[in-house]
Amino acid sequence: MLSLLVNALWLMLPAYFSNSSAVLFAGKTPIDFGKNFIDGKRIFGAGKTFKGLIGGTLLGITVGLLQQLAKAGSQISVPSFDPIFVIVTLSFGAMLGDLAKSFVKRRFGIDRGRPWPIADQFDFVAGAWILTYLFFSDWFVHNFTPPVIAVALILSPLLHLAFNQIGYRLGKKREPW
Amino acid sequence: MLSLLVNALWLMLPAYFSNSSAVLFAGKTPIDFGKNFIDGKRIFGAGKTFKGLIGGTLLGITVGLLQQLAKAGSQISVPSFDPIFVIVTLSFGAMLGDLAKSFVKRRFGIDRGRPWPIADQFDFVAGAWILTYLFFSDWFVHNFTPPVIAVALILSPLLHLAFNQIGYRLGKKREPW
Repeated sequence: MLSLLVNALWLMLPAYFSNSSAVLFAGKTPIDFGKNFIDGKRIFGAGKTFKGLIGGTLLGITVGLLQQLAKAGSQISVPSFDPIFVIVTLSFGAMLGDLAKSFVKRRFGIDRGRPWPIADQFDFVAGAWILTYLFFSDWFVHNFTPPVIAVALILSPLLHLAFNQIGYRLGKKREPW
Repeated sequence: MLSLLVNALWLMLPAYFSNSSAVLFAGKTPIDFGKNFIDGKRIFGAGKTFKGLIGGTLLGITVGLLQQLAKAGSQISVPSFDPIFVIVTLSFGAMLGDLAKSFVKRRFGIDRGRPWPIADQFDFVAGAWILTYLFFSDWFVHNFTPPVIAVALILSPLLHLAFNQIGYRLGKKREPW
């Protein structure tokens, strides 16, 4: 059980860091360049910037590389990011999931920052998993076993909330969720 | 692939029917007896009645029994509801999931009938799976393999929407979702 928890946490760390750190790289240029979709509402909204997308992804990748180094240096018994590119799909996928959620949120007319429970907590998890599965299905199925997935689904909203609280207290986030 | 689709549909039918038919058994006595929670808002709301809960569960159970009879009578290659009580946990679990969602919705102050995307489409799926897993974990793990779960997750919102459209056109539902 403890090993399940450690494995789930280990596998999700790049996604947690990329998703939660995007807000630290505030940035100015929005990914949608301020443009509206065909419904007259913003494509993604002002909250989604290139700097956040790229900064968050790079931090997630950095964390994954550090994890892989720590594993190699210490022989701790945790899953291996091998092929190493899964770190990219986990980190960038997390950002894409969040972006896709924002797109849908704008279509529903939900303002930036207004909560959409469940979608807000799992957008990045779904994005990280789907992108990684698409590119590295063998690695995904081998590492994200049903019990790991179950633990990750419970863990993710809790850590997401914890990370967001930190961002809020640091004054980097306008809402504590 | 077709067999995956058939198996997922077969396994979910009791939950689909119980969840979608509750609205047909309109009923008057609400499960919360009209009482408020400690936050001053209704516990579940006027939309959740004993008649709906019991009628929906019984219809789901009936559908499951008919399926099991059809399987026994025709030797069609579909999963077996064995132990037969999984039909009860699938049907009643679907209702409990919906009820739990209503409870949370009221806490968030979301009015009855106002949509909560994702939660609305998956509440009954989560309820059916969790209750069945709690009582019949072996049967669940054996039948709800990761591919079946993946197909069921795609299938469920589509069928949920289709069923709700029928309810709406029959004049039994106030919203088409």
